[in-house]
Amino acid sequence: MTGRLTLPTDADIIDETIRLKNLLGADALRDCDGTEMPEALLSEPVKKYATYYTTRKDNAWAMKHPEEIQQEYLISNRITARGETLRIRLMEGFHTEQLKVNTLDDPKRWWEVIDRTTGEVVPTDAWEFDEASGEVEIRTIPYHEYTVSFLAFLIWDPVHMYNFITNDWKDTPHQLTYDVRQPKTKQYVKDKLKKWCEDNPHIDVVRFTTFFHQFTLTFDDKKREKYVEWFGYSASVSPYILEQFEKWAGYKFRPEYIVDQGYHNCMFRVPSRQFLDFIEFQQIEVCALAKELVDIVHSYGKEAMMFLGDHWIGTEPYGKYFAGIGLDAVVGSVGSGVTLRMISDIKGVDYTEGRLLPYFFPDVFCEGGDPIGEARDNWRKARRALLRSPLDRIGYGGYLKLASNWPGFIDEIQNVVTQFREIHENMQGTASYVAPFKVAILNCWGSQRRWMSNQVHHAIWHRETYSAEGVLECLSGMPFEVEFISFDDVRNGIPEEIKVIINVGDAYTAFSGAENWIDEKVLTNIRRFVDQGGGFIGVGEPTAYQYQGRYFQLSDVLGVDREMCFSLSTDKYNEKNDDHFILEDIDGALDFGEGTSRVYAQGGHYQILAMDGEYSQLVVNEYGRGHSVYFAGLPYSPQNCRLLLRAIYYAAGMEQEMKRYYVTNVDTEVTVFQKTGKIAVINNSAQAQHTELYIKGKCAYVLDLKPGEMRWVDDMEDR
Amino acid sequence: MTGRLTLPTDADIIDETIRLKNLLGADALRDCDGTEMPEALLSEPVKKYATYYTTRKDNAWAMKHPEEIQQEYLISNRITARGETLRIRLMEGFHTEQLKVNTLDDPKRWWEVIDRTTGEVVPTDAWEFDEASGEVEIRTIPYHEYTVSFLAFLIWDPVHMYNFITNDWKDTPHQLTYDVRQPKTKQYVKDKLKKWCEDNPHIDVVRFTTFFHQFTLTFDDKKREKYVEWFGYSASVSPYILEQFEKWAGYKFRPEYIVDQGYHNCMFRVPSRQFLDFIEFQQIEVCALAKELVDIVHSYGKEAMMFLGDHWIGTEPYGKYFAGIGLDAVVGSVGSGVTLRMISDIKGVDYTEGRLLPYFFPDVFCEGGDPIGEARDNWRKARRALLRSPLDRIGYGGYLKLASNWPGFIDEIQNVVTQFREIHENMQGTASYVAPFKVAILNCWGSQRRWMSNQVHHAIWHRETYSAEGVLECLSGMPFEVEFISFDDVRNGIPEEIKVIINVGDAYTAFSGAENWIDEKVLTNIRRFVDQGGGFIGVGEPTAYQYQGRYFQLSDVLGVDREMCFSLSTDKYNEKNDDHFILEDIDGALDFGEGTSRVYAQGGHYQILAMDGEYSQLVVNEYGRGHSVYFAGLPYSPQNCRLLLRAIYYAAGMEQEMKRYYVTNVDTEVTVFQKTGKIAVINNSAQAQHTELYIKGKCAYVLDLKPGEMRWVDDMEDR
Repeated sequence: MTGRLTLPTDADIIDETIRLKNLLGADALRDCDGTEMPEALLSEPVKKYATYYTTRKDNAWAMKHPEEIQQEYLISNRITARGETLRIRLMEGFHTEQLKVNTLDDPKRWWEVIDRTTGEVVPTDAWEFDEASGEVEIRTIPYHEYTVSFLAFLIWDPVHMYNFITNDWKDTPHQLTYDVRQPKTKQYVKDKLKKWCEDNPHIDVVRFTTFFHQFTLTFDDKKREKYVEWFGYSASVSPYILEQFEKWAGYKFRPEYIVDQGYHNCMFRVPSRQFLDFIEFQQIEVCALAKELVDIVHSYGKEAMMFLGDHWIGTEPYGKYFAGIGLDAVVGSVGSGVTLRMISDIKGVDYTEGRLLPYFFPDVFCEGGDPIGEARDNWRKARRALLRSPLDRIGYGGYLKLASNWPGFIDEIQNVVTQFREIHENMQGTASYVAPFKVAILNCWGSQRRWMSNQVHHAIWHRETYSAEGVLECLSGMPFEVEFISFDDVRNGIPEEIKVIINVGDAYTAFSGAENWIDEKVLTNIRRFVDQGGGFIGVGEPTAYQYQGRYFQLSDVLGVDREMCFSLSTDKYNEKNDDHFILEDIDGALDFGEGTSRVYAQGGHYQILAMDGEYSQLVVNEYGRGHSVYFAGLPYSPQNCRLLLRAIYYAAGMEQEMKRYYVTNVDTEVTVFQKTGKIAVINNSAQAQHTELYIKGKCAYVLDLKPGEMRWVDDMEDR
Repeated sequence: MTGRLTLPTDADIIDETIRLKNLLGADALRDCDGTEMPEALLSEPVKKYATYYTTRKDNAWAMKHPEEIQQEYLISNRITARGETLRIRLMEGFHTEQLKVNTLDDPKRWWEVIDRTTGEVVPTDAWEFDEASGEVEIRTIPYHEYTVSFLAFLIWDPVHMYNFITNDWKDTPHQLTYDVRQPKTKQYVKDKLKKWCEDNPHIDVVRFTTFFHQFTLTFDDKKREKYVEWFGYSASVSPYILEQFEKWAGYKFRPEYIVDQGYHNCMFRVPSRQFLDFIEFQQIEVCALAKELVDIVHSYGKEAMMFLGDHWIGTEPYGKYFAGIGLDAVVGSVGSGVTLRMISDIKGVDYTEGRLLPYFFPDVFCEGGDPIGEARDNWRKARRALLRSPLDRIGYGGYLKLASNWPGFIDEIQNVVTQFREIHENMQGTASYVAPFKVAILNCWGSQRRWMSNQVHHAIWHRETYSAEGVLECLSGMPFEVEFISFDDVRNGIPEEIKVIINVGDAYTAFSGAENWIDEKVLTNIRRFVDQGGGFIGVGEPTAYQYQGRYFQLSDVLGVDREMCFSLSTDKYNEKNDDHFILEDIDGALDFGEGTSRVYAQGGHYQILAMDGEYSQLVVNEYGRGHSVYFAGLPYSPQNCRLLLRAIYYAAGMEQEMKRYYVTNVDTEVTVFQKTGKIAVINNSAQAQHTELYIKGKCAYVLDLKPGEMRWVDDMEDR
């Protein structure tokens, strides 16, 4: 089997590229940031991708049009006034090689000084910008704290800067950014793309990296990462755009809508109405302009592929406007099951491609690095998600030479590629079996950000988040159709196919839902849903909002609340009884990750399945004809996938359906393609595993799997 | 040495009482609940205390005047309506032997039905009480949650019920309670007290247990403790009293002021204005009426002693009206240093007496019990507080026979009594040395509740509280004058003698301060105080209130904030450097108790002294001329006393003062009585300890102390 594979190449590795292309059966080659597609390979019988930068790699243009360089809203350090005036040096803590204060547009129109002690905006006549010193002088109230929100030009593209630092580039000039949304640059970039298409007849796929606005990536004065938000819109602004926004929205723009108290509208913040307006406006404009570029590419008979990353801001692949771009493909980085589903679930393109890890960069391919281990872990997490929702292609990025020289690494990816092709071979484009009901993740973002919730910067591990994000990682490879619904969806009536709603996250975040939980419409609709037989699963601080005697507003549904010190005088009498359907497969300790402390069971209908001292960690509750399950945390692990699988069937009241297809060993999972009659059993662990495979509730196969193995068997229902 | 000691006695232990009185040098005998003072002992040459119950032990009276039986505001279970009507059974979850719904007073006037989903009061025409079933029927909105707040008669005194259950009494009739505040009972109780004084000429001290209103102690339907709040006013209500309150306060009373969403104004709640009004009103009335009883006692030449516990509600010993009662003495239970200081710091009485633990009850004097260990622990914690602020007397309670029969127990208390007398002998009524500045605990209760903060029910250990309450326990035996100040005190200007302010507790509680932290007056006064050289110590979630980009509102002063998921995209770069004055004495692991997760250092002036992974646990910060210290938690331990001692001197900027008097061994402490020239060095551990004693910065003594020893040496400054 060949095909479905893209390899990177470079000028210094031509023969080896051809050898590996043949060995691995690659059908596409690509260049990367910092590498070049060699002339000699242009005639190879494979697709050639060219990385195309719309916003950089043309410093001459950028320098000629400084007013059209990209801009970012920054917020200064918070400084406490000691007296009646205060000077704040704007660039303190930022890197002056990356950012430069915008002195071209009127500060009084576009900046904002805020008294953070009161939250009040300081009138523009109470502060002045001193350009010479780069400081803003403010008339202050002593011992109040102040910030200045201001615009700065992005004089070094953040990803270029990142690659430059990571790869220790020396003489490469810093690439400036220009804003394709602005009039002169827009025309220039379109013309340039046409010319580029003409000049590059051998290129089959234009791989946009990406369109116009970089996610927020800001460096500090020591060239260290200072702030990174993969979903951030802070670097998609300019007075030119904001004036258009004001017209569209019908109200005056404020810098605070972007800097957001210094939180920069991180995804955990409950989005304000104005921020939601802004991202919608950006999507409309970005998608329309992206379509113009895609149309140019198509007019030259080439394909247009978008990289989901870098300058992807405004393209929101689950937004309303994405399909209108008319892209042929999306490619993105696969760090886990969740990030794979984020790509593979995208509609409105012909195909999707995942760039597997590790990236062939010297930070992993180095002494002490473990690229083979990373590749293996990455594949195990990706594979279970792939089986549910396949990417059409996979590929790698970086310096091919590094991979080629690392002993055993090529064998490892050969194994990955073979398994990937086997999946497509066996599924034949058909859907895998899912339970006869839908599962919904409920948060403030809903379907607009499928598989994007509860994570920081493309699902990087954070101690604060892994115990919640694990729910999504588990789900990414489970046999359920997963919807992402918003609180408005709940207000408008919970869709009928949904049988289980999951609410996961920390109190007062966009993921648990914050003030939505004191909206009686939300509460009553969910209570009715569960009372009439639905399931509700809460993880962490679900439904949390301190109000009217409860912290978890659906404590009646969940059977638990959290002790915030106000009910310490109330005796709890919580006792464990772990005899329950959910724990039937589980031996040994449960892992709730960081967990959530101080949770106790209450009401008359609960059963506590796990405790930490006097705190409850896993609790089930009956509510009318429905069921709920509470988890103190649920980091990703094979065991927790099984816990969640059982919790979902229990919550749905469908326990008897679970063994339609089932593997007894917790470290294994099963995926069934009923139309082709093929079943995959995967070993998610690094040890050999023995498992029975149940079909229609009966043991159909007894299997011994090698570490990490994927075994295919036939769907023989009537054996 | 003899004296300063009270022993309990009983009818069945007359000779042994005399033997122990002589052996231990007791100068007072007392009876207890369930025991009797034997006639034979009335002629002994000691003071005789008689426990006097103003509100119970007279069921005949109570039954004759059911309308004057004491009442409690209860809140029913929270019940979610499934349809348009709902019936709530009021007594569900309560014990019908303890409480009985008040059907004498008009429910529509005194009860409240609340929709807890919206917080709205249900109009009185939308519900009815069905006396036959004991249910309230409510016209409901489906899937809203409802509660009924109602009045119930206390038909079994809670403490009598507690003693009855704990001691497994069988045939004792349940003692009803009557309300001395009500007109008929008031007269009756006064007359009865006069008669009692006449009938009991041999009694020297009338030990009121206590006056009129029991702290809240409610049992569930299985006779288990359901709710206990030692500071609770819920059982001090009646329509008779509330109508007076309405007149005094000038507004209409609402049951919600008492039931408080079901939290019953637990001390962790930020008290509402109405609740503060209510407790002030109760203090005025209770103290005035208590004075009448005390005057009667005095008129018979007897002393009046108040037990700080049981029916102490309304006497608030640190309140404005307490001294007016004219008591001779207060006696209370000493469970720790904090509870000792709560008694020994009381002004307005001639003497204080502490009832040491354990109580001679069969729950400790039993197989598996460890009364000697309890006595020893109790004494070690009490002793260090005693040395700072001495009780005048100590005593014990319960069944003397149990203590007498337990091998070795009498030896143990003989040791305690000897040490106690040594302290008085050496201090001669003079004050011990304290640092030349004051330390303040800042919370919503301020001086009204000295040594009462951060605790549940008389400082019972709770996993949720010990890491905060430890600060007070440490302070109770430290050489600092401690003030308890409120946010109003801060608003009005921080008193000049105060050099260090401590804010300790969980977010949004009365102890950390909740919305006070978004009051610019509070913030600016504290910032100015620290900037000009003051110290600020935060423990747990100090100054917490999510607002304007910060969770800890004084993050600039503290140098730390807590990650509530909104700044996960901001890089932290926290690194430990534990080379600091505060840690100079400390070997081995630090103990932050439950700690506080997700704390990180920020700003440019911090030093991190301890971390747990990427989280900071102990951080110092410079702020202008002042200093701050942040602790993730500070449970009581000898080591943490030392940490706090050093932290306070550091925060005060007075490091050089610390070795005025100092012991090098962390498990020891030193107390100095400069006027008598006596120094006590105590070993707070159960092991032998070697320590140097510094005076004026120089080593003056080298001491080897036995386990738990208290060694007296002379204050020889010029050796």
